[in-house]
Amino acid sequence: MSSDIRAFSPASVGNAGVGFDILGHSIDGPGDLAIVRRIAEPTVRIAAIRGTTVDLPRVAEKNTAGMALLSLREGLGLEHGFEIELEKGIPLGSGMGGSAASCVAALVAANALLATPLTPEQLYPHALAGEAVASGSLHGDNVGPMLLGGLVLATKDALVRIPVPAHWHCVLVHPDAVLETRRAREALKGHYALGDFVAQSANLALVLAGCFQGDVALVRRGLSDVLVEPRRAPLITGFAEVKTAALDCNALGASISGAGPSVFAWFESRADAEAAATAMRAAFATAGFASESFVSPIAGPAARVLP
Amino acid sequence: MSSDIRAFSPASVGNAGVGFDILGHSIDGPGDLAIVRRIAEPTVRIAAIRGTTVDLPRVAEKNTAGMALLSLREGLGLEHGFEIELEKGIPLGSGMGGSAASCVAALVAANALLATPLTPEQLYPHALAGEAVASGSLHGDNVGPMLLGGLVLATKDALVRIPVPAHWHCVLVHPDAVLETRRAREALKGHYALGDFVAQSANLALVLAGCFQGDVALVRRGLSDVLVEPRRAPLITGFAEVKTAALDCNALGASISGAGPSVFAWFESRADAEAAATAMRAAFATAGFASESFVSPIAGPAARVLP
Repeated sequence: MSSDIRAFSPASVGNAGVGFDILGHSIDGPGDLAIVRRIAEPTVRIAAIRGTTVDLPRVAEKNTAGMALLSLREGLGLEHGFEIELEKGIPLGSGMGGSAASCVAALVAANALLATPLTPEQLYPHALAGEAVASGSLHGDNVGPMLLGGLVLATKDALVRIPVPAHWHCVLVHPDAVLETRRAREALKGHYALGDFVAQSANLALVLAGCFQGDVALVRRGLSDVLVEPRRAPLITGFAEVKTAALDCNALGASISGAGPSVFAWFESRADAEAAATAMRAAFATAGFASESFVSPIAGPAARVLP
Repeated sequence: MSSDIRAFSPASVGNAGVGFDILGHSIDGPGDLAIVRRIAEPTVRIAAIRGTTVDLPRVAEKNTAGMALLSLREGLGLEHGFEIELEKGIPLGSGMGGSAASCVAALVAANALLATPLTPEQLYPHALAGEAVASGSLHGDNVGPMLLGGLVLATKDALVRIPVPAHWHCVLVHPDAVLETRRAREALKGHYALGDFVAQSANLALVLAGCFQGDVALVRRGLSDVLVEPRRAPLITGFAEVKTAALDCNALGASISGAGPSVFAWFESRADAEAAATAMRAAFATAGFASESFVSPIAGPAARVLP
């Protein structure tokens, strides 16, 4: 009956260093593709999974894309169902938002099949429901930027795009290593001191103010994760050296992308970012890891339907 | 030799609910006055303390204003000293930044006596040094707004004014009760959960984004203290009722001013704020406390030299 819709969602840098679980930005680079079609049965099926990762759950309730479309069906009271094919471009366990990208790509494709498509904000709760399947928690710092594009504040019930000058760029370096999100989350267990929260929230506020004002000096002051990075960095071989390489190349700051092991850094220009990408990959190589790198505006693209 | 300089510093709302130790705003209302003169001796003397509180330390090192000017002298390598008279307009232990106001008023007056006056940012470390005498910690959420005026992000080494629409107003209600800052700080001892921090930092980010964009709906979503208020509210009789009174009068949010017991609330207009002030005072009265209230733009004034 209805034709296939193909949608693409970019990767993203979750947490963005200072906004654990609430701040992230999309990346102009790799991503996941979803092909979605309407089916008469009142259900959601995963018909195929291709690409970088294929051993993902095929049961809709256990698949981020499947769960997102189940949530969408239920939320809208749709009579029909959906069939999904996924083409994974983002490796799992990379810290680049792979599970979120499948979920958002599927939602954006399914949305284009609706008589009255929803806004990104209206899709957001369904994306959160999908993302929770993979991570076990509701956090929008990957799905939020994928839905809206750019740097996004993603709280439990709001998406706010944070303006970023177009010439500010990010380097994302992905080492050939896997760090499971659940293991990275376990490293965060335990208690925290109020003083660490104060320091981290000051950094978050400096980065936000710097972005709103286009003031690179404020971002440079604030872009430092004093809360989460110290607990996760030991899980990433070579992290300290890669971060130092970025800072030595004039990074505004550098930290772990999402749950890692990918590392990101922000720069005032594309030229700075490109020079740093080489140095950051060299640092991973010294630590024994091959890697790939992506240079993107911080204000990266949103997920989109493909022609 | 040199003539007396008189300077006034307004009161302030420390923490502003979502920015513990780092965010605050000044109030157009009560304040402290400092009269400062140069003296030949290489020292700082407190010559007199008048006003709402007079039993404050007269030893410069133990007085916030005295310590701030000692820090200024040492920082600039001044050969001369200062003599200070203080006229306290802000009650101590009120949560209105009384110790900070004396410190900032003295600094602004002393600064006007310098051959080359410093900027507010340059005065900031000396204000922090003064404030630490009273509270035992370096936090700029009161001295920062007093130095710059308005809503200010005050980190350990930066002051950033956050833009706020001129018609947004604050109510500050001060009950006739004293809550010692040290006691209010003790209530915060212990450990914190990461989830509470995520929720609080999301609120901080929503409030900042709302201020930068002049978006009252974002501020309304974010202006809620889920981290500190639950631990301090039990120290303030009537707090829950006063907060409810504010929210019932269309407040964007309400919480504890500084360490309390004063309560503040934000509103979209002066008319809303004035109506709420009456209701908030009535709620304190029901709880057994007389109170005074102040209605001010959130973008309150900076400390200033008086003619």
